[in-house]
Amino acid sequence: MQVTNLDYISANPLLPEVREAMIDAIQKDYGNPSSSHHLGDEAKEILERARQSVARLINSPASEAVVFTSSGTESINHAIKGVALAYSKKGKHIVTSNVEHNAVLKSLRRLTKIGYRVTSVTVDEYGLVDPTRVEKAITDETILVTIMHGNNEIGTIQPIKEIARIAREKEVLIHCDGVTSVGVVPIDVQDLGVDLLSFSANQFNGPSGVGGLYIRKGVNLWPLIDGGAQENGRRAGTENLIGIVGMGVAAELASREMESRVSHAKKLKQRLIAGLQEKVEDIILNGHPELSLPNLVSVSVKYIEGESIVLMLDEEKIVVSTRSACASGSLRASHVLLSIGRDYADAQGTLVITFGKETTEAEIDRFLDVLKKVVANLRKMSPLYKKGNA
Amino acid sequence: MQVTNLDYISANPLLPEVREAMIDAIQKDYGNPSSSHHLGDEAKEILERARQSVARLINSPASEAVVFTSSGTESINHAIKGVALAYSKKGKHIVTSNVEHNAVLKSLRRLTKIGYRVTSVTVDEYGLVDPTRVEKAITDETILVTIMHGNNEIGTIQPIKEIARIAREKEVLIHCDGVTSVGVVPIDVQDLGVDLLSFSANQFNGPSGVGGLYIRKGVNLWPLIDGGAQENGRRAGTENLIGIVGMGVAAELASREMESRVSHAKKLKQRLIAGLQEKVEDIILNGHPELSLPNLVSVSVKYIEGESIVLMLDEEKIVVSTRSACASGSLRASHVLLSIGRDYADAQGTLVITFGKETTEAEIDRFLDVLKKVVANLRKMSPLYKKGNA
Repeated sequence: MQVTNLDYISANPLLPEVREAMIDAIQKDYGNPSSSHHLGDEAKEILERARQSVARLINSPASEAVVFTSSGTESINHAIKGVALAYSKKGKHIVTSNVEHNAVLKSLRRLTKIGYRVTSVTVDEYGLVDPTRVEKAITDETILVTIMHGNNEIGTIQPIKEIARIAREKEVLIHCDGVTSVGVVPIDVQDLGVDLLSFSANQFNGPSGVGGLYIRKGVNLWPLIDGGAQENGRRAGTENLIGIVGMGVAAELASREMESRVSHAKKLKQRLIAGLQEKVEDIILNGHPELSLPNLVSVSVKYIEGESIVLMLDEEKIVVSTRSACASGSLRASHVLLSIGRDYADAQGTLVITFGKETTEAEIDRFLDVLKKVVANLRKMSPLYKKGNA
Repeated sequence: MQVTNLDYISANPLLPEVREAMIDAIQKDYGNPSSSHHLGDEAKEILERARQSVARLINSPASEAVVFTSSGTESINHAIKGVALAYSKKGKHIVTSNVEHNAVLKSLRRLTKIGYRVTSVTVDEYGLVDPTRVEKAITDETILVTIMHGNNEIGTIQPIKEIARIAREKEVLIHCDGVTSVGVVPIDVQDLGVDLLSFSANQFNGPSGVGGLYIRKGVNLWPLIDGGAQENGRRAGTENLIGIVGMGVAAELASREMESRVSHAKKLKQRLIAGLQEKVEDIILNGHPELSLPNLVSVSVKYIEGESIVLMLDEEKIVVSTRSACASGSLRASHVLLSIGRDYADAQGTLVITFGKETTEAEIDRFLDVLKKVVANLRKMSPLYKKGNA
């Protein structure tokens, strides 16, 4: 039986065009873009073509503003640590929210060990950041605001444009973790007004292990990786050209098909939500009902464990996630779900369902039917459920 | 005409087996190794198999001691900055040599901006580090010694085992930049006695953009990239699985064929050196005559510019390098060549010729013939040469 993949957030499948381009790059085996002979020229051309495609996807005013990295996580580390270290004379205070990805949270925690201070603003029941709270959190010591675009666990999209306006007024830099949004919904760095934007190819059907960081002209941050002169001296190390080629093609396709992909995802999301409400009792839908990623549904299924659901669905060749793959293996409840007011048990009973261009309505329907069965079976065995219904 | 590639150090060509494995990985399109469903299990298995192959190549006592990175440069940054930040309470002094790669030099320069001190020991005319100088440079404040294995510009191999013994005696950690050596000559981390070893897949016919860092059990260094729990919490970010698969296969082949590759390279090197001495006047061979990488020859061609030779050879479809690709674009003379006593002009007239498994004697001979012609033509135009011969 074919696998029904509803865990796009862990890794989008590669589109056929992306695979072809990567296979072609492997077969052509380009040289090192830094070499001064003709093998280097070819490689450099390939690299810059990919950079232009990626720049177009986020409407970067210039392709040089895009730096290739090895993941969204590296981009985030580079942005946050790079700004912190470069602007330390101005101050050592950073503002964030309490629903950020671990890459942001742990980069910030790392900085607190060398003297930085972090203020984390709370969110409302939908996971939304209130821009006035960000404004209040900014002090004379603040050098950076870092807030994500689309939340990777509940899908809520933050009012980045408004937050960026505030940061600009206060003369504080703004970094946006755009990993789950770039390539999924239209993102325009100029319209958003952000100084730094992190993103990852595997969220728009490109390969894993390739990311990008947009750095607005004039923002001077320390490199995370020092060495050779690659990426205009902002990120050393011989490039993962095969991966970058894949990212370039994936970016081009995402730009071209953005409108149809969003409307396809919206339809699937509607169908999925309606189906969940109809077929499964005692559920809570998480995240903002409108300001949300079109390709993500987070649902807390009361009285049972999300991990058990994942395993039973897996036996039926349906894959979903309980939370971001980066955090699985951790037994702690999601900080995002606790932040929006879910209790520990409901947080543990939460599924994250993500999909994309190649997902069909039939797959959504099959998932709903199997989920209904699985939930009924698990609840039969659940002491919590009996108590809940007592 | 086929390209004669004598610039292996910029990027080794991918071996057919490596290409096949990478193409297969693209077609199978494995999931995210961190997912808890079956797609994650498959990906995790692939990842760990590659890790075992890489661990075997350097005789790591356990595969968990190997962390995958995005390049040799990232590995070096991780090792140096990670140790510096983790051991800052013990001291802030680091010992290195003045012939290291830019990744080492610039990581260290970065650390000096946040209060660290660096002592750089000088080398002899062959580029060799004298271990007793390292010993003398170590103080009570020293936390790390970082010395490379094989030099990327002149090939000289440092007495790492002896330096590591000294570091151990002094209770100082030792990192070795093994990028040009791992996969090229036998490297055994246990025999060498190093705490940290950096290396890169593209130096042994694997893809660019994938590297490794060996971390001896018990060495606690800060991650360079914080976030998810990948790589046992030592390097966050979704893995470049396609690249890692390529690195695994390349490592396996390098282990298996080490002996024959070394003896093949030695033969080519002998032929190349004899040919240079016979066919081109006024040259200087750089590096140690015996303690040296078998796949690298550095030659200073007096009275002309190395870049001009590279361009004229390129027209004949022969590619060589003037120095590490990471440093090309820079007009400054090589710090390595200046360190071993070359003057500015001779340093600028230097070629780095590197080769590998697939290089043939015929290619070496063709290079020698074309070089002879090119040098004669360039010298005719060189005011330096006229003066030199006046």
